[in-house]
Amino acid sequence: MGSAAAADVFIPACAAVGVAFALWQWFLVSRVKVSAYAAPGGNGHHGGPVFRIEDNEEDVGMGGGGDDDEEEGAGDGTVAVARCAEIQSAISVGANSFLFTQYKYLAAFTAIFAVVIFLFLGSVHRFSTDSRPCQYTSGRTCKPALANAVFSSVAFLLGAATSVVSGYLGMRIATYANARTTLEARRGVGAAFATAFRSGAVMGFLLASLGLLVLYVTIKVFGLYYGDDWESLYESITGYGLGGSSMALFGRVGGGIYTKAADVGADLVGKVERNIPEDDPRNPAVIADNVGDNVGDIAGMGSDLFGSYAESTCAALFVASISSFGADHDFAAVAYPLLISSAGLLVCLVTTLFATDLFKVKTVRGVAPALKLQLVVSTVLMTVAALVVSLAALPANFTMFDFGQVKQVKNWHLFFCVAIGLWAGLAIGFTTEYFTSNAYSPVRDVADSCRTGAATNVIFGLALGYKSVIVPVFAIAVSIYVGFTLASIYGIAVAALGMLSTVATGLAIDAYGPISDNAGGIAEMAGMSRRIRQRTDALDAAGNTTAAIGKGFAIGSAALVSLALFGAFVSRAGITDVNVLNPKVFVGLLVGAMLPYWFSAMTMKSVGSAALKMVEEVRRQFIAIPGLMEGRAAPDYARCVRISTDASLKEMMPPGALVLLAPLVAGTFFGVSTLAGLLAGALVSGVQIAISASNSGGAWDNAKKYIEAGASDHAKSLGPKGSDAHKAAVIGDTIGDPLKDTSGPSLNILIKLMAVESLVFAPFFAAHGGLIFK
Amino acid sequence: MGSAAAADVFIPACAAVGVAFALWQWFLVSRVKVSAYAAPGGNGHHGGPVFRIEDNEEDVGMGGGGDDDEEEGAGDGTVAVARCAEIQSAISVGANSFLFTQYKYLAAFTAIFAVVIFLFLGSVHRFSTDSRPCQYTSGRTCKPALANAVFSSVAFLLGAATSVVSGYLGMRIATYANARTTLEARRGVGAAFATAFRSGAVMGFLLASLGLLVLYVTIKVFGLYYGDDWESLYESITGYGLGGSSMALFGRVGGGIYTKAADVGADLVGKVERNIPEDDPRNPAVIADNVGDNVGDIAGMGSDLFGSYAESTCAALFVASISSFGADHDFAAVAYPLLISSAGLLVCLVTTLFATDLFKVKTVRGVAPALKLQLVVSTVLMTVAALVVSLAALPANFTMFDFGQVKQVKNWHLFFCVAIGLWAGLAIGFTTEYFTSNAYSPVRDVADSCRTGAATNVIFGLALGYKSVIVPVFAIAVSIYVGFTLASIYGIAVAALGMLSTVATGLAIDAYGPISDNAGGIAEMAGMSRRIRQRTDALDAAGNTTAAIGKGFAIGSAALVSLALFGAFVSRAGITDVNVLNPKVFVGLLVGAMLPYWFSAMTMKSVGSAALKMVEEVRRQFIAIPGLMEGRAAPDYARCVRISTDASLKEMMPPGALVLLAPLVAGTFFGVSTLAGLLAGALVSGVQIAISASNSGGAWDNAKKYIEAGASDHAKSLGPKGSDAHKAAVIGDTIGDPLKDTSGPSLNILIKLMAVESLVFAPFFAAHGGLIFK
Repeated sequence: MGSAAAADVFIPACAAVGVAFALWQWFLVSRVKVSAYAAPGGNGHHGGPVFRIEDNEEDVGMGGGGDDDEEEGAGDGTVAVARCAEIQSAISVGANSFLFTQYKYLAAFTAIFAVVIFLFLGSVHRFSTDSRPCQYTSGRTCKPALANAVFSSVAFLLGAATSVVSGYLGMRIATYANARTTLEARRGVGAAFATAFRSGAVMGFLLASLGLLVLYVTIKVFGLYYGDDWESLYESITGYGLGGSSMALFGRVGGGIYTKAADVGADLVGKVERNIPEDDPRNPAVIADNVGDNVGDIAGMGSDLFGSYAESTCAALFVASISSFGADHDFAAVAYPLLISSAGLLVCLVTTLFATDLFKVKTVRGVAPALKLQLVVSTVLMTVAALVVSLAALPANFTMFDFGQVKQVKNWHLFFCVAIGLWAGLAIGFTTEYFTSNAYSPVRDVADSCRTGAATNVIFGLALGYKSVIVPVFAIAVSIYVGFTLASIYGIAVAALGMLSTVATGLAIDAYGPISDNAGGIAEMAGMSRRIRQRTDALDAAGNTTAAIGKGFAIGSAALVSLALFGAFVSRAGITDVNVLNPKVFVGLLVGAMLPYWFSAMTMKSVGSAALKMVEEVRRQFIAIPGLMEGRAAPDYARCVRISTDASLKEMMPPGALVLLAPLVAGTFFGVSTLAGLLAGALVSGVQIAISASNSGGAWDNAKKYIEAGASDHAKSLGPKGSDAHKAAVIGDTIGDPLKDTSGPSLNILIKLMAVESLVFAPFFAAHGGLIFK
Repeated sequence: MGSAAAADVFIPACAAVGVAFALWQWFLVSRVKVSAYAAPGGNGHHGGPVFRIEDNEEDVGMGGGGDDDEEEGAGDGTVAVARCAEIQSAISVGANSFLFTQYKYLAAFTAIFAVVIFLFLGSVHRFSTDSRPCQYTSGRTCKPALANAVFSSVAFLLGAATSVVSGYLGMRIATYANARTTLEARRGVGAAFATAFRSGAVMGFLLASLGLLVLYVTIKVFGLYYGDDWESLYESITGYGLGGSSMALFGRVGGGIYTKAADVGADLVGKVERNIPEDDPRNPAVIADNVGDNVGDIAGMGSDLFGSYAESTCAALFVASISSFGADHDFAAVAYPLLISSAGLLVCLVTTLFATDLFKVKTVRGVAPALKLQLVVSTVLMTVAALVVSLAALPANFTMFDFGQVKQVKNWHLFFCVAIGLWAGLAIGFTTEYFTSNAYSPVRDVADSCRTGAATNVIFGLALGYKSVIVPVFAIAVSIYVGFTLASIYGIAVAALGMLSTVATGLAIDAYGPISDNAGGIAEMAGMSRRIRQRTDALDAAGNTTAAIGKGFAIGSAALVSLALFGAFVSRAGITDVNVLNPKVFVGLLVGAMLPYWFSAMTMKSVGSAALKMVEEVRRQFIAIPGLMEGRAAPDYARCVRISTDASLKEMMPPGALVLLAPLVAGTFFGVSTLAGLLAGALVSGVQIAISASNSGGAWDNAKKYIEAGASDHAKSLGPKGSDAHKAAVIGDTIGDPLKDTSGPSLNILIKLMAVESLVFAPFFAAHGGLIFK
């Protein structure tokens, strides 16, 4: 068991290195000084985020105005710094206040749901404290079901807490970095890029390290009680994934509604009715919009990927525990998923240095290639690392549980599973880039269709989203086929882990987007010069594509993760066969395929309704506050923040209930076959709608940016801002907002969460499920 | 075998009664006289549809003008009749010319595909002319595979021919009736309604009777060769379904692209840029638009429902042939599907009299209830008829083939299967009505969201479409569960037949929509009075909802039909288990769920591109033809007709190839398990996207109509025509056009056609399939 000791050193050491690296990056970001000269707040509205607008009309109006590239804005000096500090503080206060309010609700939910888990799982053996025969290792005795109920609930709470902390820390660093990125833009694109990217890396590394560390410690602590009963130990650990994912659900849905209600509301009145630029400080919803980027795209995405990470690890660990090396109590082999993630942290660390130190970005054109290089480098390095870990940690030959049978597996088989997941992720990333970047023809065709108005723009954008599904689905299908064929469900789980092994880099790239977006917003609001704005715009345009790539990764990994969880659920529920020719299964499949639509209907309607409220409030303020349009009076930002907060908290309940109740209802009343069908249906249908929604939205956004930037003759023929084609593009962009930032990404969670919930409740469903059908 | 003789009398008798009834209705319609005084054609453009515009500006401009209800249009007299005749002739010529061109392509395709069928099926036993042991009836000898190859090809050709004839006859009666409906509107709403509805009935009855008769005769003729070998007889009969459905594919896709390219193109220039009313004769695309209604909504829908009808009957017959009564050669029992359809014809005949004779429509308000009454009456009567047929034709107890096992079934079980399909159809119909009629809150909410512009309109409309999926999916799921549980795959097939047993009424209601739409267009173009236009508008508004209901039926029945075909395919391919835990199956499931997206991407992009070409041509004509805008010169309608024709014929190829090749590729290279997964995935995913696309489109269309009609204070606050809210509604309507009339309904065919193709080729796949995976 020398290799077990090595694992016990390697895993926590890598996690510690990851944390240290994150702190170092944070330190580097913190050297950019942002001092708030002005007193915080102003008109005392409920302590919400408010800041005073200096009476500097010339400056405020500049964004849409002159064409003079060399002009150095009067506002780039100390006054601008003070303004940036104020705005940053307003955004930070708004985001903090939203997240804390949300966490209060979530705390109540978590407490209740932990009790539900305890009651359901405890009831499996009628709350008996007696030991019971093990399910997979015949002839041995396992800990009582009641213990699993307790430990599953505890693991659930730990997963929830880690998810919340991950999201919160991400939001903190993002709101810490946004104004710093703006200010660094004065020094050049390279400096601004480094600040935004480093901040993203802080989030990526903190989250990946934290997730790994908490899981490792939990396993060790639970192991003190479980001893040799690894079957039950890893079964209860699955609660960790459920905890992570259920927080991610509310983070994604709540955050997504928040950010898009504000964004859509701000755009509908600001851009369309009042004809003022995006992020104009006169727009009362502008702070809410920027807060939304941080609570939706940052905290929500962080929780989402943490959830995927936690779930795929839990699924892999559970399946590993019932393998031959699980029965042999070979910890190094069982901990293979953790070792892959640990190696991934080191790989990502080296990869990050490529962007920030080895090949510094110097020009606007260098931004997108630098981000793409990150993807390629991390994938190549991780492939090598996976090979090393596979050969070092795993026995040369072993058997995996394969739905009641056993499958012979070799250690290099698992290397192939990890590698195929990794490279499928890259394929998805590049496909997403092709369909959402305005450097390629798909987005340009969409932009071109704006000539004939918003309707053709929407038709072309929807068609683009549908088409963009093809390659990712084939990439996922190949990963599934290879993983499944080589190592049954364990192969899928480690393929998912492979895709997620570079999650620190993926998150860094992804978080970079909203940070740059915020930086641009702050530059506009602070009235900085056109040159600064151009630089932040360039960063933001690249960020739009990386955000789409991040969503592609998130959905790709979610598909693999939920299939792994599905397999683990089926194993745990004792089913050997999910036969589509069984009417119970088929009905589940059909209804499951419908759930993503039901869910999307709810979330999109929520965004629509919340945006309508926001529109009314913004219109009201423009009428009720004299001098607002002229920039002589400050809007009441706090009211808009509150509208977004209230709407998102209220509206996240019904879709959340749908996702959480669907598996419980299906399993309890219709039994495990129907539930298995439901999960498979939701998975295969949800993947398509999630990818197409994200990519349609990303394409519309970048088609609009393409027209605005006017960088080619073709783009110029469509623009400028305010042309009919541009107006059509803005409509498409607005429609894409809830698709790409609310309903699309929330579907990842839907498919994962239903699967992990089914896995956690599997003992209950197997024992008592199917009240109607059985 | 007395009951067999009864069946041999009853089936052809009912078909004959159906044909006679259709001819009688046609005779009633023909009594409305439309005589063309003016010489046909004019400017001699390629023999296409053209007509001269009288120089009557006051009249032409009237549609958008005065508010005077009592004014009797100067144009309602003989001049108007002449104009109506001209326009009708122009539409008819255009539709004829399109269909004949399309049929030329289809003839080539059909000939090639018949050869493909022959080669694939002939190769199963290496083109041997030897008899072979039967697959299901052990110890008996069946006809050689080569015979099946020949007869399947012949059945395919017959199915294709019947489908083409059905679509063509529907188009003929529709273009015969549209101007007559317009002219009858002078006598009142009731008379116009009766004309439009009777014409729909002609199509419904001709199609249902013809389908039944050809199938019956084919079985009898094939039986002369096959004798006692019913297993092979009904296997080769499945080619009939494939023939019907492959024509329907091109009819739906080609017709759908045609009609929407013209419609979108006409609207984008006419309504948005030139601010002239819909169907204004100055718009060069207006004839193409009206032709499109006939080739897309009439001929396409006719082929689609004929395909469903043929396929569900073939699936049921095939499964029946391998049941216990099939082995017993009980013809009355095996012909149960045909008997149900025969009884359905009689029921629909009585139902039709309810609308045209028993309860005549007298006012505008009476139109929608009369159509709804049709649905209810036909469902109630058919339930009784199904009970009688079930008890009379079937043995009290028998066994059905159940994937390698046998299932005990009683005759009243099958009654329940038929009834559940029938009532599920009604539930789908009413749900569709709720979500697409502007009498209820969903459409009104969508209309209300137009206040804040096109973006919120689209977001709400998409959300509505997603939501509208829930009830239909549950209705289908219940039908599947009941059907499957009672009688395995045969239960599904007869549930589908139940839903389709009232197809004559369904088609009558459905065809009524485009006929009324055309009637309104002709009234506008002929410059008839406002009063006439209001009447045809009221008919058209009800028609929009019935069109949506028709699409709901089409997709609901398609789901059941394709599941039945899927089950028949699985039986024929000798699989006993389609296990999702098998990676081959899961990969098929995932990729299958992606196909509807790929397909929709193609069809929507096609509509978009074709519409852009149309827009350019219409713009060009407005600039190039002096006096066109002023109504002093006639546009060149023929060029627009040709653009739609060329575009639709060119663009229908790639999606057609996708649908036809996907099962062949999957089956040949990856084997029957992957193919089974592919079919299941396409089915469960396609149903959702088809329903949501149809209903979003229908809702946008009626939201626009709601604002235009201004019938309530709420509607008035959004209008009138030309207001910002109305413009936003027009954008939504335009986006909905390809969704509801091209990609949505084509998906029905996708899921059915892939399934029936798999069934026909099943012997080949079972013998030689799986080159890569096996």
